Amino acid sequence: MALGDNRIRVGILGASGYTGAELIRILARHPAADIRLLSAERSAGKRVEEVFPHLSGLDLPRMIHIDDADWSTLDMVFCALPHGTTQQVIAGLPAHLKVVDLSADFRLHDLAAYETWYGHAHQAPELQRDAVYGLTEIKRDAIRGARLCANPGCYPTASQLPLIPLLEAGLISPEDIVIDAKSGVSGAGRAAKESSLFAEVAEGIHAYGVASHRHAPEIEQGLSEAAGRAVWVSFTPHLVPMNRGILATTYVRLADGESAAELRRVLAERYAEEPFIQVLPLGSAPATRHVRGSNHCLIGVVADRVPGRAILISAIDNLVKGASGQAVQNMNLMAGLAETLGLEQPALFP
Amino acid sequence: MALGDNRIRVGILGASGYTGAELIRILARHPAADIRLLSAERSAGKRVEEVFPHLSGLDLPRMIHIDDADWSTLDMVFCALPHGTTQQVIAGLPAHLKVVDLSADFRLHDLAAYETWYGHAHQAPELQRDAVYGLTEIKRDAIRGARLCANPGCYPTASQLPLIPLLEAGLISPEDIVIDAKSGVSGAGRAAKESSLFAEVAEGIHAYGVASHRHAPEIEQGLSEAAGRAVWVSFTPHLVPMNRGILATTYVRLADGESAAELRRVLAERYAEEPFIQVLPLGSAPATRHVRGSNHCLIGVVADRVPGRAILISAIDNLVKGASGQAVQNMNLMAGLAETLGLEQPALFP
Amino acid sequence: MALGDNRIRVGILGASGYTGAELIRILARHPAADIRLLSAERSAGKRVEEVFPHLSGLDLPRMIHIDDADWSTLDMVFCALPHGTTQQVIAGLPAHLKVVDLSADFRLHDLAAYETWYGHAHQAPELQRDAVYGLTEIKRDAIRGARLCANPGCYPTASQLPLIPLLEAGLISPEDIVIDAKSGVSGAGRAAKESSLFAEVAEGIHAYGVASHRHAPEIEQGLSEAAGRAVWVSFTPHLVPMNRGILATTYVRLADGESAAELRRVLAERYAEEPFIQVLPLGSAPATRHVRGSNHCLIGVVADRVPGRAILISAIDNLVKGASGQAVQNMNLMAGLAETLGLEQPALFP
Amino acid sequence: MALGDNRIRVGILGASGYTGAELIRILARHPAADIRLLSAERSAGKRVEEVFPHLSGLDLPRMIHIDDADWSTLDMVFCALPHGTTQQVIAGLPAHLKVVDLSADFRLHDLAAYETWYGHAHQAPELQRDAVYGLTEIKRDAIRGARLCANPGCYPTASQLPLIPLLEAGLISPEDIVIDAKSGVSGAGRAAKESSLFAEVAEGIHAYGVASHRHAPEIEQGLSEAAGRAVWVSFTPHLVPMNRGILATTYVRLADGESAAELRRVLAERYAEEPFIQVLPLGSAPATRHVRGSNHCLIGVVADRVPGRAILISAIDNLVKGASGQAVQNMNLMAGLAETLGLEQPALFP
Repeated sequence: MALGDNRIRVGILGASGYTGAELIRILARHPAADIRLLSAERSAGKRVEEVFPHLSGLDLPRMIHIDDADWSTLDMVFCALPHGTTQQVIAGLPAHLKVVDLSADFRLHDLAAYETWYGHAHQAPELQRDAVYGLTEIKRDAIRGARLCANPGCYPTASQLPLIPLLEAGLISPEDIVIDAKSGVSGAGRAAKESSLFAEVAEGIHAYGVASHRHAPEIEQGLSEAAGRAVWVSFTPHLVPMNRGILATTYVRLADGESAAELRRVLAERYAEEPFIQVLPLGSAPATRHVRGSNHCLIGVVADRVPGRAILISAIDNLVKGASGQAVQNMNLMAGLAETLGLEQPALFP
Repeated sequence: MALGDNRIRVGILGASGYTGAELIRILARHPAADIRLLSAERSAGKRVEEVFPHLSGLDLPRMIHIDDADWSTLDMVFCALPHGTTQQVIAGLPAHLKVVDLSADFRLHDLAAYETWYGHAHQAPELQRDAVYGLTEIKRDAIRGARLCANPGCYPTASQLPLIPLLEAGLISPEDIVIDAKSGVSGAGRAAKESSLFAEVAEGIHAYGVASHRHAPEIEQGLSEAAGRAVWVSFTPHLVPMNRGILATTYVRLADGESAAELRRVLAERYAEEPFIQVLPLGSAPATRHVRGSNHCLIGVVADRVPGRAILISAIDNLVKGASGQAVQNMNLMAGLAETLGLEQPALFP
Repeated sequence: MALGDNRIRVGILGASGYTGAELIRILARHPAADIRLLSAERSAGKRVEEVFPHLSGLDLPRMIHIDDADWSTLDMVFCALPHGTTQQVIAGLPAHLKVVDLSADFRLHDLAAYETWYGHAHQAPELQRDAVYGLTEIKRDAIRGARLCANPGCYPTASQLPLIPLLEAGLISPEDIVIDAKSGVSGAGRAAKESSLFAEVAEGIHAYGVASHRHAPEIEQGLSEAAGRAVWVSFTPHLVPMNRGILATTYVRLADGESAAELRRVLAERYAEEPFIQVLPLGSAPATRHVRGSNHCLIGVVADRVPGRAILISAIDNLVKGASGQAVQNMNLMAGLAETLGLEQPALFP
Repeated sequence: MALGDNRIRVGILGASGYTGAELIRILARHPAADIRLLSAERSAGKRVEEVFPHLSGLDLPRMIHIDDADWSTLDMVFCALPHGTTQQVIAGLPAHLKVVDLSADFRLHDLAAYETWYGHAHQAPELQRDAVYGLTEIKRDAIRGARLCANPGCYPTASQLPLIPLLEAGLISPEDIVIDAKSGVSGAGRAAKESSLFAEVAEGIHAYGVASHRHAPEIEQGLSEAAGRAVWVSFTPHLVPMNRGILATTYVRLADGESAAELRRVLAERYAEEPFIQVLPLGSAPATRHVRGSNHCLIGVVADRVPGRAILISAIDNLVKGASGQAVQNMNLMAGLAETLGLEQPALFP
């Protein structure tokens, strides 16, 4: 990969969706990256500002069809393609290209689980074996050496960051973990669906995918690894009338003799040097609006009134730390760059 | 109380807040009620349409100061006053007046619990003993004969309706119940507070009052009565950028040998004749937008992926079934009227 | 048409859209109407609550395909079908049926104008000649005797109500009228379009159809008739992140010697007996949230700082007075009922 | 002022409001500025993250009371104080300090007009004479040499940018200009007012300050200067349920023989080299969501259907180009820096 004087030459596949737009937004101002290729099926031939007027005025290539890509001009590819098609595309990429994949295709190590949740056999099982799960603060060393990074889902990012250190330390029970999660509507993507219409979403809230959301096995994979045993979670996502943000409210039972204060202490210690994770004072609860547009994850720990229980609350921007921001964070690692490069922008509030 | 030919003569104390407005909206079109008195401290002297332009064109009395009320002209009073001041006002009302109180002042039977949660001794303990808790579908018979009805809080209404029949029937464990609740902003009232500003609420979600919200003891009082033993719940409210609505997502452990289907069956049977409660098909999740402006409570039951667990989801309009609608439902009972009178309006969507 | 003891038997064609749902909401509680038929192409066979969960619990017929309609069972039909297909459907209805059409198909008297704006020749020109334009407060007498009522568009309703009396009275210039209008997103219908997605609409505002919106000729037709000469308007609609509501801010030049106060006086006098129109005190500006869910139109008149100019502001709910509410108001007239029947519900705020 | 190696040492007075927060957000990442002082009356003593959690993790001074400021440590001060108090504060600042004032105090050259609109005599008339109006693209040269820059209001920025070049070129009539403007709620500031509550603003739109808004004389001052004669405008602001953004829809009459295309051409030419102004293709209308968080102004020009008329539409973020972003742009000029420094971030969408 070209470093030193030269900037990393990146391509974005699936640039016409919201995560694609967010990759452009971040990478266009990244001091060590150079966007050389943007692909989009239906928008091939268009300029970026025709698809995303908020990105006008940047010096960017036209969108092309993926079949017209010249991979030799790139060092790194971000895949923001739909689940399912991604694995075939990535399997066909030349070996010199490093890949950060934002789809779910390479997140589940267990190919049988993939088949169960996604309804078809995996098309690139050999790549799956090499893929590194890109939850940066947990998998940093492996990501550095990865060729293919499976960028985590938005719910799994918000859910695992507070839980993994606590399960590893044995501070909480791996039983009866309840994750009640809330997401902004951009998480549903830019596809024209009745369920994503303004009038169907505004002025209301509802749960969806109850006990059946595909992010559940991804969360459980990470928690099981941390706990050293199989972990099942009650996971319920909700749709909130806001563009961006994920809030995960997680209810846990303390291990014998532990306290919420100890949970908070261990999390604060574990993440003390992390530029993008902030553990709030004990009893404080974060808000998604305070990470809007930023790559931060805020974590709060509260002692429950019910003895022996605690509540963990984590907030991220689903399109940034939950998708494109973490993808760039992983690119930085894979390219040997400072991890925060291009991601230092504070949140936008109000 | 005047019945027969005559309509019930009602007064609304604290008519300038959102629950007051909602009482006016409902009662102004109620075929057996006649609004005779509206009190509001700072808005005394104003016409209703000056305070609430959406209520113009109705033939209503001017707002007056509560000290100027002539109680002899009324049969029934709705108290929508702030917590704390309510008990003194009600203690001073003549005995012929029936009262539906929308504050929290008479909801907790245990005066010590009241003192703990509200920070001062109760000012009308003798009234507290007579007060009937107004969760209509659960306390209907007692409400019929009540002189003072303590109308439930919005969160307690949404939380208790699905849980009480299940605890009574012993279908779920009274341990480790987690209630993750989400509310629209009107629940915070019309007071000018920074935390209720549009720019502080829109485009975000956060938890508040975590493990410390005053509705927790009210919920636990009802659940304990149903379970026949002390029940503690993990209860976390969240603020959602919408005007109206409460969604309570409740995580329960099944009693041995029980199933989500059985939970759903028992709830459907229990509420089969209830005009305002609808139990959805197994696996369906309700949305708050489908009860906007109506007195309905929608309840969904979903089997969790974690064996032995289920998820209950309930949706109400916090200002209607969670406050003023249920108050009118209780008035109907107390006055010997059909319970649905004035409350038949379908929800407003979108 | 069956009157007297019997309720009017109504059918709603195109019941699965937002105006269809709103017709059901209003008519299901209408004391003199009985919904006998609901048609919907793709939702044929479904129960109403499957398509619109907020309308569950009402005793309504299943949705059917329009081809399966038995017209002999109906007295009145509401057409909430897409523009273009409507004219053929209505042309095929038996003569005993009265029709309120919510599409644009019969609003323009000038068939050439129709062809210009809608891009094809009119398919039922003979019906067009008989159609009565349903701006109730302006055309009341003609509507009473109509067989086919062309219900006005939402923008034209909000725009014409303040302007027509002033043009008729010669109080304002017919030149240089500027109508800057703002609409909620439900006006775009329930079709799944990228431009109506929550994430494309929330947190922003934009103009659309600038100088090319099809409601412009409809507005001009009414204003020209009122002025007795051709009137052209500058009309710009905007999309606002809210579900419901239209606000029209109209800038006019006063006729010589006239004043805003006189404009206000004439409007107040003209609409003094109108149950659904309220002229605010001089200088007051209405808000759409104060007519949410109601059939009201609020009108404000403000003297501009620029000498000789005034500003008119009108607010309606686009789905009620701007569509289904006015349609029921017209049905009431056509059926010889009290005009306000079924429409007395106050607005829902907040 | 310290340049060269040293960064500009800046202070922000009134740092606890929304424009203060936005100044911190931009300046904290500005490569040539160093935030040395933050003042806030009620929040004195607090850390920035206590007042604005979205700004945590930045290395910033604690907020202090303005009386405790050591002006000798600063080169430049941003004043984000309330109107009225500002002029006394600025009058008391030492001469070496350059000032960008975000209040309205120094925007009106005509002291009599100030007194009329603000209800009291100006307290620092001598400073008023030296103040340079900070509409950057129009007053760039004067701003470079200014000691005190009166940063424009949000509405005046959006309104004047399209109009001034057209009036200067004589392409439009200075008569009968209508500016219909729409603003997000952050423009009302962070003060706890009932009118800014979520439940009072969401799901609705209304006009306010009709024919009486204080930004009208500021707009007219700029337009009159451009036209070389007195210009009065019809200016109506509206409150839109969104956090950020101003859209100004402006209706103009063309000078004889002119066309919308010519207007567009002249604007495009005038702003061709401007990094923050983009003139869209003829007929295109901009959206505020495409400038959210950025310093850009998008301008659209549309030919009206009414002969001889055109419609101009401009979009900015009220807190950025309409306040803090333009303030930093002006600071850059006053400090001899590249004008775009710190302001290159693309907009955040969705």
